[in-house]
Amino acid sequence: MADLERNKQIVVDYYQTAFDGEPEKAAEQHVGDRYVQHNPMASDGTEAFIGFVKWLRGEHPELKLEIKRVVAEGDLVVTHSHLTLEPGEPGQALADFFRVEDGKVVEHWDVIQDIPATAANQNSMF
Amino acid sequence: MADLERNKQIVVDYYQTAFDGEPEKAAEQHVGDRYVQHNPMASDGTEAFIGFVKWLRGEHPELKLEIKRVVAEGDLVVTHSHLTLEPGEPGQALADFFRVEDGKVVEHWDVIQDIPATAANQNSMF
Repeated sequence: MADLERNKQIVVDYYQTAFDGEPEKAAEQHVGDRYVQHNPMASDGTEAFIGFVKWLRGEHPELKLEIKRVVAEGDLVVTHSHLTLEPGEPGQALADFFRVEDGKVVEHWDVIQDIPATAANQNSMF
Repeated sequence: MADLERNKQIVVDYYQTAFDGEPEKAAEQHVGDRYVQHNPMASDGTEAFIGFVKWLRGEHPELKLEIKRVVAEGDLVVTHSHLTLEPGEPGQALADFFRVEDGKVVEHWDVIQDIPATAANQNSMF
């Protein structure tokens, strides 16, 4: 159980630090000797991720990542997050899966969906 | 740990049974006294889910749901799945979060993304 909590802390710090504006620091501190990338827009390694976050923050200085829940089992940590690029917009729902080995993030998958302006229920996407 | 395995089995059976063509049976066996829905296209309760799956299978009789990984912690179970509506198409990546209480599914969130035909890496979205 201690490992799960540690893995969750590592992933949350990695992800939040990166989107708060320090993707190099996040990658340096938390990524292992490889970074297997399943996001179809990015190549393996942290360079593409760092470049993407820096570009996105340059375009949208007020972007905000809110991690809504974190689920961990074995070497996997899943986050369910709300990303807004501009204040007040619906933003995107993100599910990210990370594999953590020996305290380092080594693999990443995600699923991303634009949040519609209206919904058939009152519960929000989170 | 036994509870986590049980919760995972319940969610996998619920989800797979529904998409294999028996959404009423899946809901009857596995949904609790409420079904709080966060998918913005559906209202609360299982009726919208059942209707959606039946309509989708009517339109695409060869649709296939493949659950690629399952992550459970506490009362949450997360699935990462590949849905194809027609054989050979890239399909969609799905992340689903389910809350299980006393052996019954009571809440559902999802994030859905179309899989692009080409990718910047060789790892697939799964």
